[in-house]
Amino acid sequence: MAKKKLNIGLIGCGFMGKAHSNAYLKVGKFFDVPFEPVMKVICDSNAEKAKCFGDNWGWQEVETDWRKMVARKDIDVVDICTPNNTHREISLACAAAGKIMAMEKPLAMDAGEGREMVTAAEKAGKPTMVWFNYRRVPAASLAKQIIDEGKLGRIFHYRAKYLQDYTISPDVPQGGDALWRLDAKVAGSGVTGDLLAHSIDMATWFIGPMARVCAMTETFIKERVMAGGDKKMPVTIDDACAFLARFENGALGTFESTRYACGRKNQNTFEVNGEYGSLAFDLETAHELEYFNHADPISVRGWRTIQTWDSKHPYMKNWWVPGCGIGYEHWHINALADFLESLGSGKKLCPDFRDALGTQIVCDAVLESAKKEKWIAVAKP
Amino acid sequence: MAKKKLNIGLIGCGFMGKAHSNAYLKVGKFFDVPFEPVMKVICDSNAEKAKCFGDNWGWQEVETDWRKMVARKDIDVVDICTPNNTHREISLACAAAGKIMAMEKPLAMDAGEGREMVTAAEKAGKPTMVWFNYRRVPAASLAKQIIDEGKLGRIFHYRAKYLQDYTISPDVPQGGDALWRLDAKVAGSGVTGDLLAHSIDMATWFIGPMARVCAMTETFIKERVMAGGDKKMPVTIDDACAFLARFENGALGTFESTRYACGRKNQNTFEVNGEYGSLAFDLETAHELEYFNHADPISVRGWRTIQTWDSKHPYMKNWWVPGCGIGYEHWHINALADFLESLGSGKKLCPDFRDALGTQIVCDAVLESAKKEKWIAVAKP
Amino acid sequence: MAKKKLNIGLIGCGFMGKAHSNAYLKVGKFFDVPFEPVMKVICDSNAEKAKCFGDNWGWQEVETDWRKMVARKDIDVVDICTPNNTHREISLACAAAGKIMAMEKPLAMDAGEGREMVTAAEKAGKPTMVWFNYRRVPAASLAKQIIDEGKLGRIFHYRAKYLQDYTISPDVPQGGDALWRLDAKVAGSGVTGDLLAHSIDMATWFIGPMARVCAMTETFIKERVMAGGDKKMPVTIDDACAFLARFENGALGTFESTRYACGRKNQNTFEVNGEYGSLAFDLETAHELEYFNHADPISVRGWRTIQTWDSKHPYMKNWWVPGCGIGYEHWHINALADFLESLGSGKKLCPDFRDALGTQIVCDAVLESAKKEKWIAVAKP
Amino acid sequence: MAKKKLNIGLIGCGFMGKAHSNAYLKVGKFFDVPFEPVMKVICDSNAEKAKCFGDNWGWQEVETDWRKMVARKDIDVVDICTPNNTHREISLACAAAGKIMAMEKPLAMDAGEGREMVTAAEKAGKPTMVWFNYRRVPAASLAKQIIDEGKLGRIFHYRAKYLQDYTISPDVPQGGDALWRLDAKVAGSGVTGDLLAHSIDMATWFIGPMARVCAMTETFIKERVMAGGDKKMPVTIDDACAFLARFENGALGTFESTRYACGRKNQNTFEVNGEYGSLAFDLETAHELEYFNHADPISVRGWRTIQTWDSKHPYMKNWWVPGCGIGYEHWHINALADFLESLGSGKKLCPDFRDALGTQIVCDAVLESAKKEKWIAVAKP
Repeated sequence: MAKKKLNIGLIGCGFMGKAHSNAYLKVGKFFDVPFEPVMKVICDSNAEKAKCFGDNWGWQEVETDWRKMVARKDIDVVDICTPNNTHREISLACAAAGKIMAMEKPLAMDAGEGREMVTAAEKAGKPTMVWFNYRRVPAASLAKQIIDEGKLGRIFHYRAKYLQDYTISPDVPQGGDALWRLDAKVAGSGVTGDLLAHSIDMATWFIGPMARVCAMTETFIKERVMAGGDKKMPVTIDDACAFLARFENGALGTFESTRYACGRKNQNTFEVNGEYGSLAFDLETAHELEYFNHADPISVRGWRTIQTWDSKHPYMKNWWVPGCGIGYEHWHINALADFLESLGSGKKLCPDFRDALGTQIVCDAVLESAKKEKWIAVAKP
Repeated sequence: MAKKKLNIGLIGCGFMGKAHSNAYLKVGKFFDVPFEPVMKVICDSNAEKAKCFGDNWGWQEVETDWRKMVARKDIDVVDICTPNNTHREISLACAAAGKIMAMEKPLAMDAGEGREMVTAAEKAGKPTMVWFNYRRVPAASLAKQIIDEGKLGRIFHYRAKYLQDYTISPDVPQGGDALWRLDAKVAGSGVTGDLLAHSIDMATWFIGPMARVCAMTETFIKERVMAGGDKKMPVTIDDACAFLARFENGALGTFESTRYACGRKNQNTFEVNGEYGSLAFDLETAHELEYFNHADPISVRGWRTIQTWDSKHPYMKNWWVPGCGIGYEHWHINALADFLESLGSGKKLCPDFRDALGTQIVCDAVLESAKKEKWIAVAKP
Repeated sequence: MAKKKLNIGLIGCGFMGKAHSNAYLKVGKFFDVPFEPVMKVICDSNAEKAKCFGDNWGWQEVETDWRKMVARKDIDVVDICTPNNTHREISLACAAAGKIMAMEKPLAMDAGEGREMVTAAEKAGKPTMVWFNYRRVPAASLAKQIIDEGKLGRIFHYRAKYLQDYTISPDVPQGGDALWRLDAKVAGSGVTGDLLAHSIDMATWFIGPMARVCAMTETFIKERVMAGGDKKMPVTIDDACAFLARFENGALGTFESTRYACGRKNQNTFEVNGEYGSLAFDLETAHELEYFNHADPISVRGWRTIQTWDSKHPYMKNWWVPGCGIGYEHWHINALADFLESLGSGKKLCPDFRDALGTQIVCDAVLESAKKEKWIAVAKP
Repeated sequence: MAKKKLNIGLIGCGFMGKAHSNAYLKVGKFFDVPFEPVMKVICDSNAEKAKCFGDNWGWQEVETDWRKMVARKDIDVVDICTPNNTHREISLACAAAGKIMAMEKPLAMDAGEGREMVTAAEKAGKPTMVWFNYRRVPAASLAKQIIDEGKLGRIFHYRAKYLQDYTISPDVPQGGDALWRLDAKVAGSGVTGDLLAHSIDMATWFIGPMARVCAMTETFIKERVMAGGDKKMPVTIDDACAFLARFENGALGTFESTRYACGRKNQNTFEVNGEYGSLAFDLETAHELEYFNHADPISVRGWRTIQTWDSKHPYMKNWWVPGCGIGYEHWHINALADFLESLGSGKKLCPDFRDALGTQIVCDAVLESAKKEKWIAVAKP
């Protein structure tokens, strides 16, 4: 039986555009989803790039003006993979046009923009989704299950790190196509919005909202050449950020992110300590979840390394067989499968704009705290 | 510029057929290969399965008789993903029809068949390739580079294990579509041909041919129900196999495989000890290669965990960015990319039928040694 | 040639008294130190305990009044292993009596006491030493060497955790002989003085003093039965503490400690990220130091697991042979060997009272910051 | 209450003499054993070495002729730490003199000697013990418990490695005081008797006797200078040995040892696979035992890393507290505690001469198998 088709228009042919295109191409081949996503229109302001990208990935048509694409009646879903400083404008237009939206994180440049976008999207009444793809790492989804089942009991501690090292050299330029994440005017913030947003989303998903935060940020290399030029300009983003948090449920949280941790490439970690057990995760060995169960008999008690590739683990019955792991791209496909499923059933499965606003608000509070050097209360999304 | 197309016909809609289909779908999207593989014909004797599989993966046409498919002029490459006891007949037909062949391992039921197939294929003069996909794990390819560069110096030891646990329960049946690997009439042998074939191929690729082997095999569960029935029949395959080896270059090898190692899902390991350093690998953390370099200053000397996801590591410039790993499916895609590259350049990059025959000969020697309980010399392929 | 003898008087027959007695017994058997420590007098207010302890460990005499022992002319060194609330009084008496002092950490109940003790000790002019034994873990000493040699270059980040789990159960009592660390009147503080003092000492030793800190503390179980009774009383110590720090050299630090991390027994960790490399350590696998050297060629670059049991590693030429590790007790023996060495050469090798005061001041600032919920500047020791 | 004293005479002031002296010094301080070992006489043919060693460790008297020491009425226990080629003669004299014996492994130069020694010792009727100290690593003792409790069920596989690297350089000499283990006339064999003896003892202790073995050995460096000289002589010991084994209970075993595994210092490993679970151990992280329990619910099933430092783990209530590990020397002390305990209770707790003969017989069978290149049946001890 032929599935109902869902026409996709994707804006932005960068790294995330590639990850999402791959997801649209593959999702139906591995998941029995209620819709068939049709790779209808690819859009990028750079015409040649868009053409080449579209040919490679099998997008049916190419647009260079996202407004035209959004105006098309035959587009059901707009997927926004552009730099952060364009999210607001595009999403407001999509809301006005009644489009379903899939947005690469973070939601917006700041919570002010985010609130405006949530209001517009909720008024439009169409589903939204933000690609916090690390929720869809099977080990992270399993962690969520374990916590929700009460296996950890009362939560005392949450600690998260997100460490990278790619900007240690002072010779790395800022800005441009590849490195817009180092340019505050385009990215909004540095590691806070780029990396800690993931950690905050995960923490909130697992154990609920934060009440207050206290942060420090640092920019280690004060000036960098702008990409494509040779003039040094002040670096305006945060290279590093660490913060303390108190969750509403009484748990304590510590968070840290940097791009100056030599030897760490994508070390996104969390550890949760509860009264009955603990969990620990490191994205650099993403197929493993560490679980300590205090109820095990004492002489044979120990941290269990759960290799999350059994068919009983989240998403894994759709992939290969035990021992045959998946990788970075599959987390996006898992996320997309959930989104398509939720479009069919109406049951919310993914973080939507309002959830992402919650994360944005924490990011803003973190940056404000670092600036004012004091604790900041976290507002409600 | 449009690439030259290469029409593919694939036989067998099982697990490997899926892995290969995925490779044909994706290879051109990530690698700049000299040919565009066209997913022309899918073939399976089960018509409904073939139809369904073909629809899902985008194969243009469906056949139920592989002879018809092989007879088609418009098929350039035949990919053989059928059970082992069909490899000989199909490959001889393909050779007669002048097809390029891609064969899932192992090559044949035994070395006798294998020799016949090599003779036919070499007479036909078309390229052949056997999908020993684990060579294409970036960490394994890196190991090959390190050894070839002489970084380990003279090799003293090679040790390999390939451990699984899926047949521990006496309730697992044998035979049928899913479990033909447990049926000697279809598979030829048990863990020897299925798992140790990988270990032997890798070892030979790394450090050259073996001269002599001495093995033991065991079948722990002596009788199992045949799939789909309720009658217990003797189990004829080897559940477990271990062997000692002397390589032609003087190195010692130890090899072991079993499907009775509780807790091991796909633990395919190797360790190489040379005079200047060592390497160690475990497929269950496939993105890591352990490397010990004796030349490091003694106080800071230690095993290095190389996370093989830098763009300088084999195949990785085609995938994502450091810290964003790949998985099982990608090793097949890497292998296919090499094969397409070799078809364009004429430069041999992949194991061909003759290489696979070498592995088959070792497997046969291993089984003979276990049966006769003595050392067996390994013949030349 | 007979060595000069050094008469030791040790106060306190608890856990640390045992660890120190073992050190006095063994140090001369493994290290060629300039003094022979004579186990002269053991002192504990509990006469039976002191007698039994003294017999077991071979102390020559027993005292129940520490004042009498301090008054003896034949005692050269007083080793103070009593609860924290007695450190000041005993040390002032020792200073007045001109004794060399070895003090179990932390120095004092607070920095006020600590300053008084430092003043008295420095006026007396005799050497002092505080047993921060974790400095003497070979891997930690090696880390110090690597940092001092400049192998990491400019330091960007320091992160430390010290996690335990032994107070998760609400049924654990507070106070008494065994659990005085849970009683603020005796211990001064909870995890801050007990565990973070170690982390602070290590961090300061490695990369210099902190300028400012911002902390939060928590007491998860608000009431506990007093040891030996059945009446619940408020818990007055901090169960958990986390803080942000800015070092004087510009590096960022994060520190966390708790006794509520289920599954962590003695997880004292540090990670240092510099411009040329990084180090990481976990006391739960204390013989290993992780080292990342960015200067290694990219394709074979990785975190090195240095097993610090070569004779070239700190202290290890005095112990066994590579592969034969040491344990908890040996770190105390290493510390004692250093102290005896420094007594002979006059060269400072160990943290003295003033160093420990520096740590105490940070602890006080941390507790003040948590109470006032703001950043606190760290005073000079 | 004063304990009954047991006068010890120890022969051999080398590395093992040191490890045993330390054990006699410390055992009573940590274990409540039924005898107090008195360090009565130290004996070494080198008078100066014996004097110096005796002074350092507190031995009361020094002898240079072991015969004189064995003849003394006041010696209860003779501990034999001399090179292997002296074991027979000394032990026969001890048996004749009615001494309790503690012997460093291996028992003898070969099984012939071993049988003679067992006969003499059993005729004398005094207890004997062979220091297979690795049984007393808490993780290994825990493994024994787990197996004996039936937690693994039927055993399918046992695999052991014992890898070192200290003879890779051709410049390492053979023979002399330090390197007599490289001289076949003194050591009997190379890695087989030195290292595999440990692996064989452990395997047999865990799962019972072997029925048959098939081995290969190699000597990679064919000639070495004799220690103290400059003349190269043929190397007569085995540098490396690997063997296949069939246990009497039907399990398969693989064993390998070498001193040519670059980067491995003391990597003594075992893995046991049973129908309900598995165990894995590596002496290089000796405080950890890996345990896989198939009965855990599938989604949270994983290898558990048991940190064997809880008071409920074997021997650990006598040492420190959880998180405060022990090291190499403590395994000897644990063994001695067991031996003293068994002398008090009459209950056998340690491997005796007959057990060690069983291991010797396997070693002989292994060497014979390697020489004859065929399977060899293992005789009864």
